[in-house]
Amino acid sequence: MGVVYRNIERADRETTDALAAFGSATVHEAMGRVGLLKPYMRPIYPGAQVSGTAVTVLLHPGDNWMMHVVAEQISPGDIVVAAITAECNDGYFGDLLATSFQARGARALVIDAGVRDVKTLGEMRFPVWSRCISAKGTIKATLGSVNIPVVCAGVLVTPGDVVVADDDGVVCVPRAMAAATLEAARKREANEGAKREKLASGVLGLDMYAMREPLAVAGLRYID
Amino acid sequence: MGVVYRNIERADRETTDALAAFGSATVHEAMGRVGLLKPYMRPIYPGAQVSGTAVTVLLHPGDNWMMHVVAEQISPGDIVVAAITAECNDGYFGDLLATSFQARGARALVIDAGVRDVKTLGEMRFPVWSRCISAKGTIKATLGSVNIPVVCAGVLVTPGDVVVADDDGVVCVPRAMAAATLEAARKREANEGAKREKLASGVLGLDMYAMREPLAVAGLRYID
Amino acid sequence: MGVVYRNIERADRETTDALAAFGSATVHEAMGRVGLLKPYMRPIYPGAQVSGTAVTVLLHPGDNWMMHVVAEQISPGDIVVAAITAECNDGYFGDLLATSFQARGARALVIDAGVRDVKTLGEMRFPVWSRCISAKGTIKATLGSVNIPVVCAGVLVTPGDVVVADDDGVVCVPRAMAAATLEAARKREANEGAKREKLASGVLGLDMYAMREPLAVAGLRYID
Amino acid sequence: MGVVYRNIERADRETTDALAAFGSATVHEAMGRVGLLKPYMRPIYPGAQVSGTAVTVLLHPGDNWMMHVVAEQISPGDIVVAAITAECNDGYFGDLLATSFQARGARALVIDAGVRDVKTLGEMRFPVWSRCISAKGTIKATLGSVNIPVVCAGVLVTPGDVVVADDDGVVCVPRAMAAATLEAARKREANEGAKREKLASGVLGLDMYAMREPLAVAGLRYID
Amino acid sequence: MGVVYRNIERADRETTDALAAFGSATVHEAMGRVGLLKPYMRPIYPGAQVSGTAVTVLLHPGDNWMMHVVAEQISPGDIVVAAITAECNDGYFGDLLATSFQARGARALVIDAGVRDVKTLGEMRFPVWSRCISAKGTIKATLGSVNIPVVCAGVLVTPGDVVVADDDGVVCVPRAMAAATLEAARKREANEGAKREKLASGVLGLDMYAMREPLAVAGLRYID
Amino acid sequence: MGVVYRNIERADRETTDALAAFGSATVHEAMGRVGLLKPYMRPIYPGAQVSGTAVTVLLHPGDNWMMHVVAEQISPGDIVVAAITAECNDGYFGDLLATSFQARGARALVIDAGVRDVKTLGEMRFPVWSRCISAKGTIKATLGSVNIPVVCAGVLVTPGDVVVADDDGVVCVPRAMAAATLEAARKREANEGAKREKLASGVLGLDMYAMREPLAVAGLRYID
Repeated sequence: MGVVYRNIERADRETTDALAAFGSATVHEAMGRVGLLKPYMRPIYPGAQVSGTAVTVLLHPGDNWMMHVVAEQISPGDIVVAAITAECNDGYFGDLLATSFQARGARALVIDAGVRDVKTLGEMRFPVWSRCISAKGTIKATLGSVNIPVVCAGVLVTPGDVVVADDDGVVCVPRAMAAATLEAARKREANEGAKREKLASGVLGLDMYAMREPLAVAGLRYID
Repeated sequence: MGVVYRNIERADRETTDALAAFGSATVHEAMGRVGLLKPYMRPIYPGAQVSGTAVTVLLHPGDNWMMHVVAEQISPGDIVVAAITAECNDGYFGDLLATSFQARGARALVIDAGVRDVKTLGEMRFPVWSRCISAKGTIKATLGSVNIPVVCAGVLVTPGDVVVADDDGVVCVPRAMAAATLEAARKREANEGAKREKLASGVLGLDMYAMREPLAVAGLRYID
Repeated sequence: MGVVYRNIERADRETTDALAAFGSATVHEAMGRVGLLKPYMRPIYPGAQVSGTAVTVLLHPGDNWMMHVVAEQISPGDIVVAAITAECNDGYFGDLLATSFQARGARALVIDAGVRDVKTLGEMRFPVWSRCISAKGTIKATLGSVNIPVVCAGVLVTPGDVVVADDDGVVCVPRAMAAATLEAARKREANEGAKREKLASGVLGLDMYAMREPLAVAGLRYID
Repeated sequence: MGVVYRNIERADRETTDALAAFGSATVHEAMGRVGLLKPYMRPIYPGAQVSGTAVTVLLHPGDNWMMHVVAEQISPGDIVVAAITAECNDGYFGDLLATSFQARGARALVIDAGVRDVKTLGEMRFPVWSRCISAKGTIKATLGSVNIPVVCAGVLVTPGDVVVADDDGVVCVPRAMAAATLEAARKREANEGAKREKLASGVLGLDMYAMREPLAVAGLRYID
Repeated sequence: MGVVYRNIERADRETTDALAAFGSATVHEAMGRVGLLKPYMRPIYPGAQVSGTAVTVLLHPGDNWMMHVVAEQISPGDIVVAAITAECNDGYFGDLLATSFQARGARALVIDAGVRDVKTLGEMRFPVWSRCISAKGTIKATLGSVNIPVVCAGVLVTPGDVVVADDDGVVCVPRAMAAATLEAARKREANEGAKREKLASGVLGLDMYAMREPLAVAGLRYID
Repeated sequence: MGVVYRNIERADRETTDALAAFGSATVHEAMGRVGLLKPYMRPIYPGAQVSGTAVTVLLHPGDNWMMHVVAEQISPGDIVVAAITAECNDGYFGDLLATSFQARGARALVIDAGVRDVKTLGEMRFPVWSRCISAKGTIKATLGSVNIPVVCAGVLVTPGDVVVADDDGVVCVPRAMAAATLEAARKREANEGAKREKLASGVLGLDMYAMREPLAVAGLRYID
């Protein structure tokens, strides 16, 4: 405990930035349905959709000292991913820290604990995905670490990975898979427009995806 | 498992449509305080208030194959009610399925599991009441059934029943009780305006409802 | 059970009203990090920020009879704090009671149970902090008490205490601590503007709060 | 509300009794994986394994009046299934009611709420499956119904259905499916002994169930 | 924060000790159904049944320093009641502290957090009621207080109150109510034996408690 | 998805086996308070205390196909650690699989999902730590992976790591830290006996650990 890695290898910037537009659901599909943080992680205000490179921090319950340490390690385009060594609902982060994070170029915070000053954070348009909202403050007494691999809301996040977050949730794309995931996401989206038009015109998924035969083979019976 | 009932008897259209205006709380009262789905069922955006006839689907955990099958059974004015055979938080439903449901005339989805693409669903004004929001996709491998009675969030829903949903929750009105419930709801609302005016003028419920005597009988003591 | 205390000593009005502007997070800090209701207590709509003197009511599960009794004890500037003798998610409070509470001068309701008619409550701008939203109504059969000390969402609230609530949560300030808390809150806020400016300009909390030395003493290591 | 059906058609006694030996897991499989109450339903002491015919009761939160009404409807070999109209953790049932139920011939209680006097219930060997244990008593003020279909812990239970319960949970077998389920359960168990012996000798399920080819077809890769 | 009250007024020893035999359910009834800690408080092993005078401690999340401070304030016949300022599942207490508490004469620990070494605690027959079991240790860095009123699992406990705990849960009896509660509990139990005998002989509660008429008045209908 | 690593580097056997005796709490302390699985992971029967080398498997919700694949990768002294890609309470594991695992030399199963046949598993003395117990069976349709790093109940487990589990919970010790952890655990235990004796004789932790001065420095006040 108590280590700060200053040099991390970040995922390619262009790839990272391009992933935001696809959103967490498509990126999660493109990765083969892994990497999604637990669905209790919710945005503090609706409508934000971001991607960025992960800078990680591991904290102890009720202690946010390391939030100040991680602030210095933020580069523009980063998203801070904060994990706690045990379940905790305290409010680790408020408008002052958000001001500092934003000044350092952070795009968002993903934290497996609580945050506060959420009204101000919304006015600042600094998006946060968290397990809860709580006015309960924290102390500054115990060391944690910065830029070590952490498990946040059930998912392993390595510094430099890509994080994609929106109203549907938060996905972590390992750095080594970022390019392939982007390509897969693009393929998925390529024919979505055509599909949407067809479905809007009344064509059924049953026909568009040719499901009638496999359903019959599996034994589906229709009764009038 | 694996049965689709194509012909269901739907509640009377006019009665069904008239129930929306009363909202879930009044309808729930009008039914004698039964039929309310568990309160963890929440709308994905605020302000929607709908009623419709239930078309039901029973799915397995992590598998949304039957969502395409149920789409074909939707008639205009229906609300799809989706139950899962075990607790599951996956995202069974997104914008493509919503496009299809909307094209078929569905008014809403009520699902005891997760949904995704909620930002787009909100823009489409397709209301959903669900147990959670999750970007986690599902597979298409296991048969379920369509238009069988299902238990959704603790309530038995029979195909053709009336579903009423708003910001307060979701109520299921059995088809045979729809007309009587509408009448009871109308009676409840008839003198609400007068009551509201009285209360707004400062009259107490204690006096308006003549509660002082029964409270005294029950033993309530006032201490100065 | 079954007692109504009519005369309670309320916290000083001016002090009470002045606390609203600081919000629950700052007030909680100013009190030494006690008095915060559990974070499951959430506002039914965002943006409300209030303070008021507590009028308390203790109810039984599924029974809201005493809500009518407490209405009579409301003075302008009060906030009703409702506790239940066991966990209950029913909807104890709707638009009619809100009309009555508002007519009596209540500023808000804080209830460790459910409420309903939340769309109308939002339109009326009557703020409520509750454990959930539920259309489920309640009966009127069992006595409770009004203006006795209650435990609401984990915190002891004595009639006359100050309640401060906003998007971050709900804090109870004991009457005897109200003045000192206000003074402490003012001190906290006094130099927040200067801090915010510094952080916005890129100064790190590490330097602004002189944390580098204590972190080193505690054993923090930096690795390049 | 407030109806007691005195004559219900119970599942065949011999079939009902024979199902106990298979346990909830095998019976659940034999039914096609439906009918299992939510896994939060736990036995108050380990080791009990029973089956019986369902006598149902629907109660209101915090009110156990109808427990006395249902007692009269118990025939030897019945299991009482109790549902509540909203979530409630109160202790609806203790040693006096258990004495009465046992005297009437009840084999067990399945209740989607709390129970108390669990130490005494264990000494009496009266098994209960419940959502929790709570010393909190209830009042006797509101009518419910006896022997109507109820939804208990997510499953529809019709009076006369078969209930099978053990340390793994509680399953409801609709009366019409009891015979077929018993037959299916017997078939499942018939070759379990042989399978167990093979597996105990070190034979792998991969080989015993001929899974290697379908796994390879599905794309499983082995890496040394 | 950081105060230890050395002199507390304890409930009468004889009264305190006599309450154990009645158990939490009867004591809770005798008090008028208040004072029960939330039902998530469970014993670490079955069968313990104790009463004692409360010595209280308020701790911070993840910090058990004050457990050593409270140990010194224990007198023979006390039960330590530990509350945390925010929800925490860490293991605050293990076999060494239990050895110390037992040496001081403590009869039990009631803690709204986790404990560990539960196997050893069971062998020592030192009963604990806790919200969970966790091997996670705590630090010793932050002051709390000893023998101030605390809210533990939703109930206000004042030092010197009587605590009664068994397999059904934990009840707190305010010191001033201890004698009256004991008397009420004795009355409740006095005719329990007779009731139990009657019920065991097949007499129904409906008749023994003369419920048939009030049920009919309330509108209960029997249908054959 | 769909990869099986056949060759993993296991932690040293002797070190692994020696860790069992210390239990999860001491091992967790010895590691610096990391590596503990969330406390919802509970043993299916009390009293088991084991250590072993981790063989991992990642499964999909409701699908236990890979449990048969992992069985083949078990070597004597292993503990199977099973993670699911999304939250699931189904019963993935029963007595037949346990027979197979035991025949292969597995010492335990740690699974972030449900298990069944728990009575039989107890009779077999095959210990399992799981998130719940459920009779609900699973299908065999989707590939997962064996012996990849997984996140189980919030902790990263790499194949070959040491797992230590008992009534207090489950700890994962990374292979590279096994030897140092064993040494640290031994040091912790070395003087426990002496401490226990002192505490049993009535010496206070306050004195034994010399806490009085730091408490006074921190500001603790005693009031008579």
